[in-house]
Amino acid sequence: MSTSPIRVTVWGENVHEQRDASVKEIYPDGMHGAIAAGIAKNLGENVVVRTATLQEPEHGLTEEVLAETDVLTWWGHAAHGEVADEVVDRVQEAVLGGMGLIVLHSGHFSKIFRKLMGTTCSLDWRSENDREMVWTVAPDHPIAVGVPNPILIPAQEMYGEYFDIPQPDELVFISSFSGGEVFRSGCAYRRGRGRLFYFSPGDQEYPVYHHPDIQRVLSNAVGWAAPKGAERITPHVSRRPTGWYESGQTLPTADPRLAQS
Amino acid sequence: MSTSPIRVTVWGENVHEQRDASVKEIYPDGMHGAIAAGIAKNLGENVVVRTATLQEPEHGLTEEVLAETDVLTWWGHAAHGEVADEVVDRVQEAVLGGMGLIVLHSGHFSKIFRKLMGTTCSLDWRSENDREMVWTVAPDHPIAVGVPNPILIPAQEMYGEYFDIPQPDELVFISSFSGGEVFRSGCAYRRGRGRLFYFSPGDQEYPVYHHPDIQRVLSNAVGWAAPKGAERITPHVSRRPTGWYESGQTLPTADPRLAQS
Amino acid sequence: MSTSPIRVTVWGENVHEQRDASVKEIYPDGMHGAIAAGIAKNLGENVVVRTATLQEPEHGLTEEVLAETDVLTWWGHAAHGEVADEVVDRVQEAVLGGMGLIVLHSGHFSKIFRKLMGTTCSLDWRSENDREMVWTVAPDHPIAVGVPNPILIPAQEMYGEYFDIPQPDELVFISSFSGGEVFRSGCAYRRGRGRLFYFSPGDQEYPVYHHPDIQRVLSNAVGWAAPKGAERITPHVSRRPTGWYESGQTLPTADPRLAQS
Amino acid sequence: MSTSPIRVTVWGENVHEQRDASVKEIYPDGMHGAIAAGIAKNLGENVVVRTATLQEPEHGLTEEVLAETDVLTWWGHAAHGEVADEVVDRVQEAVLGGMGLIVLHSGHFSKIFRKLMGTTCSLDWRSENDREMVWTVAPDHPIAVGVPNPILIPAQEMYGEYFDIPQPDELVFISSFSGGEVFRSGCAYRRGRGRLFYFSPGDQEYPVYHHPDIQRVLSNAVGWAAPKGAERITPHVSRRPTGWYESGQTLPTADPRLAQS
Repeated sequence: MSTSPIRVTVWGENVHEQRDASVKEIYPDGMHGAIAAGIAKNLGENVVVRTATLQEPEHGLTEEVLAETDVLTWWGHAAHGEVADEVVDRVQEAVLGGMGLIVLHSGHFSKIFRKLMGTTCSLDWRSENDREMVWTVAPDHPIAVGVPNPILIPAQEMYGEYFDIPQPDELVFISSFSGGEVFRSGCAYRRGRGRLFYFSPGDQEYPVYHHPDIQRVLSNAVGWAAPKGAERITPHVSRRPTGWYESGQTLPTADPRLAQS
Repeated sequence: MSTSPIRVTVWGENVHEQRDASVKEIYPDGMHGAIAAGIAKNLGENVVVRTATLQEPEHGLTEEVLAETDVLTWWGHAAHGEVADEVVDRVQEAVLGGMGLIVLHSGHFSKIFRKLMGTTCSLDWRSENDREMVWTVAPDHPIAVGVPNPILIPAQEMYGEYFDIPQPDELVFISSFSGGEVFRSGCAYRRGRGRLFYFSPGDQEYPVYHHPDIQRVLSNAVGWAAPKGAERITPHVSRRPTGWYESGQTLPTADPRLAQS
Repeated sequence: MSTSPIRVTVWGENVHEQRDASVKEIYPDGMHGAIAAGIAKNLGENVVVRTATLQEPEHGLTEEVLAETDVLTWWGHAAHGEVADEVVDRVQEAVLGGMGLIVLHSGHFSKIFRKLMGTTCSLDWRSENDREMVWTVAPDHPIAVGVPNPILIPAQEMYGEYFDIPQPDELVFISSFSGGEVFRSGCAYRRGRGRLFYFSPGDQEYPVYHHPDIQRVLSNAVGWAAPKGAERITPHVSRRPTGWYESGQTLPTADPRLAQS
Repeated sequence: MSTSPIRVTVWGENVHEQRDASVKEIYPDGMHGAIAAGIAKNLGENVVVRTATLQEPEHGLTEEVLAETDVLTWWGHAAHGEVADEVVDRVQEAVLGGMGLIVLHSGHFSKIFRKLMGTTCSLDWRSENDREMVWTVAPDHPIAVGVPNPILIPAQEMYGEYFDIPQPDELVFISSFSGGEVFRSGCAYRRGRGRLFYFSPGDQEYPVYHHPDIQRVLSNAVGWAAPKGAERITPHVSRRPTGWYESGQTLPTADPRLAQS
């Protein structure tokens, strides 16, 4: 019921697009460009989209940018190790304080995803033009609204189980591949005050981010992950004195954090 | 992002209010009246609220009424057994097809709640003016937005664990009572295409539904439980022929249910 | 760490085996006979297995039999409607009190499973000799110990999503089919004091219950579902007086149920 | 059904016991000594218990020790920052490979717990001799077997919500405090192939680890967290070739990891 547009930052590693002709051909504006365009097209005036890339100072993710970001999307693959730890810490703090985060495909091995999951995030894989079907297993979920069941992707890299992640708070999509594998391809988590969605379709060698149904999922995910509360407050420790509540029903106001804890 | 108002039906058993002077004094317009007023006050033009009671034909929950209801709230206590089974089945079908349902306090023993949970829904209790504190354990949850942590209720019936319910999909609130007991007081579930929220504060002998923070929770729950998709479709069996997807990416349209499954 | 054997009752509808030559050929001792034999073979002296069928008085599930059953397995298909409601209620009460229940394949539409789930339990299907692969997505789970990932079933009926069940407490297996479908084929639930496992592989027209890996899963599931506590106690309502704990650390013993609640 | 004893390593920070007379008086053998004694007393020949402390080389948690540990318990408070990162990484890898981990009380802020959770793990607190009641909300859970509901702790440090953790896979206990606060005090998680249990009762200033019911919970948790499979295998990436399954039902054996994935 909020009326101001959701502020989205689409982060792209932007390495394959610069060095691999095959990727440049599929994504002439960069993968981040394609992702941003799909969200902007679907959400129109309900959203303000910008992009940021690895090569920018602080990877384009300064304190100021994060403070103005409601939802961050993350695609990386070839250069996970080049992402500065302090930027990762900053993103984690923003997520726990309420910023939405959408991690895409090979981002399963990004520092930020592994840090928020606490597991190896490893999986099986094969890049051999498998047909992928993305099945909805939570038809009431806002991220699944308006897409066919299944979404059909003619050719895609295979990602298969076992995918080493915590059991999702909400499992939204399961994919099958023509080689017989399955994968939990749409996984929703709540962490701190923030929301996190992992979505596996999308790869530098396949034009998946131009697929209208995939664009619809990403746009839905932006709406779902946007903060529901007004302020960004990272959870923190507070000492609560005995009988704090006894002065009537008024909560102590000396420590504003207490009322928010 | 939908613009039409949420259609809410507040169902009240309306027995205590008719026979018990103590209740009539607290709730002169009925408990359903107080619940409806709180939602209408908070959500304004974003909502259209009506009430229905046990005493009406089909308890006021005809096929037509349910078809026009986005979210149903349910309060009952003294007359669970008088609710017709066919009405209960009708409500269950509506929920599984996408209607939101909010079950309140002693509604834990209603036919509809027990049917949707599959468990006894039993609990410990004591009506001795305990102080209840309602603590938020999911601060990102839309139902918890805008309420203090904890909500303080000066006097309330005690509901305590063990509460025999399936583990909630999202545990939003936990209450403590001055006698030392705890209770999972705000429990969110997804069932079929519908959403279900159980909220325990509220009793015929205490003015809890006049409490602004409780009204806020109920109003938030209405927003959360409202259907996200356009149509109400109860899940059903479909036979899917081999190779249904091979005619390009078009899904079969002969059976419209298949595309929706 | 208990040393007495687990008492297993394998319930079979026993209709197809009596009337369909094709089924009788695959399962000359009945499907229940094959299921029981696999469990007995794998668990040896750690288990005592008996069978019961629809045609027996009270379907072989008297109060006495259930009182002596630690884990009940359930296969039905053609005659769900012939199972008496009072037997279903009895089984539900036993499960909520602590008895383990393993529901197999077409048992998804049994009265007992639908009653415990609260949803339609509908799904997509096709019986056309699909190859099924059963993938483990919870490798730490006791039910998945000792089976390959995936289990390969050369020919099977297809069961596909959307499967209308509550999100499992633990999702153990996901199946793929050669036609491209996926299915949450191993779903673990806790309900009341009991444990429930749904496992979809197994059909009257395919020799799946002779498959060693499937037998291993069923045997593992028996161990997992066996009660962990000593007594069977269905959850129930108790009134807890104010200050019950104040007589030192001793719990009130007047109501034995209170100490157990 | 394994017959070899569970190998438990009880890790203690061992700082308060050395420097604070009040703690030394309550725990003359160290807190780790008391924890180890309680487990050994309850589990007898089903367990082999050793201790390790911060002050030992590699904090007593060498590769060899971890390789011989089925379940590790962790208590720390004053010196979280002194735990070497490489030991933390080693413990994390062991957990994801199958080792059980039990994190106690102020261990909520240990490096290993925060790393496995991915959140701040912050909470509210007060050390003012609150009475704590530990309520069971999962009566079927093996960790809750044999303890009263609630466990009464006459005096304890208060830990209150909001506790910033991922929603537990299984919420076993909820505590209340005489000051009115609540806390999710018994939280079970599965991570990788390992199991993790957080249990909050226990503090250096209160004799909680001498409490028989608390010792029972810790002993139960050891049984629950012990690995179910035979080998410790950290999840990892594998490339799965197309048609790997087509050579009959035999899985490829060239890469032993594949069969284990």
